[in-house]
Amino acid sequence: MEHTTEILLQLLIMLAAAKVLAELFERLQQPAVVGEILAGVLIGPSVLGWVEPNEMISLLAEIGVMFLLFNVGLETKPAALLRVGVRATIVAILGVITPFIFGYWLMLAWGAPTIEALFVATAMVATSVGITVRVLGAMGVLDTPTARIILGAAVIDDVLGLIVLAIVSSTAGGTVNYTSIISTAVIAIGFTVVVALYGAPLMRRVLPTIQRLRIKEPMYIVGILIALGLAVVAADIGVSAIIGAFLAGMALAEATEHDHGMHQRTNGVTEFLVPFFLVNVGMQVNLAALTTPATITLAVLITLLAVATKFIGCGVGAWGLGWRRMMQVGVGMAPRGEVGIVVAQLGLTMAVISDSLYGVVIFMAVATTIIAPPFLRPLFANEAAAQSRADILGAGGVGRQKELSQLR
Amino acid sequence: MEHTTEILLQLLIMLAAAKVLAELFERLQQPAVVGEILAGVLIGPSVLGWVEPNEMISLLAEIGVMFLLFNVGLETKPAALLRVGVRATIVAILGVITPFIFGYWLMLAWGAPTIEALFVATAMVATSVGITVRVLGAMGVLDTPTARIILGAAVIDDVLGLIVLAIVSSTAGGTVNYTSIISTAVIAIGFTVVVALYGAPLMRRVLPTIQRLRIKEPMYIVGILIALGLAVVAADIGVSAIIGAFLAGMALAEATEHDHGMHQRTNGVTEFLVPFFLVNVGMQVNLAALTTPATITLAVLITLLAVATKFIGCGVGAWGLGWRRMMQVGVGMAPRGEVGIVVAQLGLTMAVISDSLYGVVIFMAVATTIIAPPFLRPLFANEAAAQSRADILGAGGVGRQKELSQLR
Repeated sequence: MEHTTEILLQLLIMLAAAKVLAELFERLQQPAVVGEILAGVLIGPSVLGWVEPNEMISLLAEIGVMFLLFNVGLETKPAALLRVGVRATIVAILGVITPFIFGYWLMLAWGAPTIEALFVATAMVATSVGITVRVLGAMGVLDTPTARIILGAAVIDDVLGLIVLAIVSSTAGGTVNYTSIISTAVIAIGFTVVVALYGAPLMRRVLPTIQRLRIKEPMYIVGILIALGLAVVAADIGVSAIIGAFLAGMALAEATEHDHGMHQRTNGVTEFLVPFFLVNVGMQVNLAALTTPATITLAVLITLLAVATKFIGCGVGAWGLGWRRMMQVGVGMAPRGEVGIVVAQLGLTMAVISDSLYGVVIFMAVATTIIAPPFLRPLFANEAAAQSRADILGAGGVGRQKELSQLR
Repeated sequence: MEHTTEILLQLLIMLAAAKVLAELFERLQQPAVVGEILAGVLIGPSVLGWVEPNEMISLLAEIGVMFLLFNVGLETKPAALLRVGVRATIVAILGVITPFIFGYWLMLAWGAPTIEALFVATAMVATSVGITVRVLGAMGVLDTPTARIILGAAVIDDVLGLIVLAIVSSTAGGTVNYTSIISTAVIAIGFTVVVALYGAPLMRRVLPTIQRLRIKEPMYIVGILIALGLAVVAADIGVSAIIGAFLAGMALAEATEHDHGMHQRTNGVTEFLVPFFLVNVGMQVNLAALTTPATITLAVLITLLAVATKFIGCGVGAWGLGWRRMMQVGVGMAPRGEVGIVVAQLGLTMAVISDSLYGVVIFMAVATTIIAPPFLRPLFANEAAAQSRADILGAGGVGRQKELSQLR
């Protein structure tokens, strides 16, 4: 069998497995996302070994999650996100500090060397906005205020995570270069803020030019070009590529508000490729690394601590919004997903964490991603019901506006 | 820069270059397709060297052209294609024999060894349905009878090309295994005919089950699974993967006829990925291989002969439909595109054609692909105008029906 055909077969297996388990989970009233990640664990090297993670799958996964965030960005006007900006910043900061401190402390108590403890703690800082957004999007509650807080906090979390990673990596390298860390931080924050603030007004100005283009679907194509461009810049700076794609979507949100075709098209790519992202996350798990009672204990402890510290840190950050919203935010920020995996991979490449600890961190990243979604459904059940009522009545704007004003 | 980021950057360059040239060509009243292929020649190794062809790009290109054909299949009911079946078969057979004989004769006259002559002749047999379909789709004339003849003939051409390739390859191998060639032919023809005939009725029966699924966009996801599945089977048999995707689309055509969202979603993937297919075709050109006056002469001769023989062979196959339709079919079948490239690559791998002859064949494959589209536009101008009138009046069915009945 030729190489391309072999990859098409892998894609077929991944997509089929993802959707069979998604269907099963939906029937069990559980989030499809969890089924699709477990499909990856199942067909991956851990259990059946039908598909090995590889570069091609990673690329499709990356494009898929980029489109997912681009799509979410398209439905997020900058003003709506800026309105919850202060709150999101507090949530993000507490959600970074809490897991980092407790993770570091646990690893030291476990007897790990300082640098290993620092890396594990950094992996626990990450938040995989992709997973939460996928679950909330499936429930149709992405435009609720709490979802916006989670989204904003996840973006800020990514920038903070980059700064933490820069500090920890340079500590591992031996010499801490403060100038370089500060410049990394300034560039990352500057990029995010500038694009978030000036992207939309700029797009408003160039919109007539785009609409005059003769190519097919000019708005869609230009949108993809901007998303790819900002993704590359973001990744080059050190922020996740998907943050760039999200900012691109947000810049275009106003211009494409009533462009139903644009949303359907990006949705077509998203629905096709996101399963590969989820399966790919699941496939990273290596259960063979978790054989000794000690590693299993550590994996479970770190996972529980990772969930608890994000839940408490971010929940406290949402103080004053009521218990239910605090819990929504706390659970919504818990999945570490691909961001935690990237930190673990970096640690392995830099040879500062061992193979077995790598397995432990990957387990934590995937387990937190599987644990959170089932709790998100009941927590957002009211909002989901209100959303379907609003969809039926065609008058969701008013109540939403009122709810939003309470949060300012 | 990390590896994934580097590839995202390559994709950005490819898409941007494709769309800049597409826009330029549209403004010059020329087909966008040609601009996008030339963008590949420009940024590829031949001229600027910004992007090298690689496996990842090939995969995206393959998925892109698969979705393109899947999309076309969705708009092609099997009955409509079977109605022009006999005609399409004649066009395909004459379109295979003519370029093969004349190509073989030219190479022998040029002094090439028999096996080299056979391989070049085989590469001249190929038809890249993707290119023609893209041009006709952009003009909105895909459901005209001549477009259907081209489509059907291109599918049959692919199967015939496989048989010719099987014979030529085994000749190159030294011993001709007739049993294996016959079984290849029977399987390829059987697969195509069975799926074309029984795909749609089968889908009609399972449609209620698909609609009862709880996963998001069940029809779209099942459609992709079927397309991927048939693509893998087709490729494994030896037919192009895109033929499988096309047959999958055709099987679903009836079930998704009024599912506008489905078409928009597949269209979203197509518009995103097809430019990579076109740019990738252009990037294969290696102008450095065409340095001596002899190779340049040969490249030009083969290209002219390739165009002329398909034009005459297929045109004659459309005898009796009037001059304009004969020319439509003759020009529509001329592009060799990726199918010719695959044959050339196989010849290079089997070491039966030299590096410089490889360059010549690739030049032919790409040049025929660039030459044909500008002629398709004026040839289909009447149909395109009728189509826009019908779109405005919302009553295209009647005239189309009449035109179709004349062809039986």
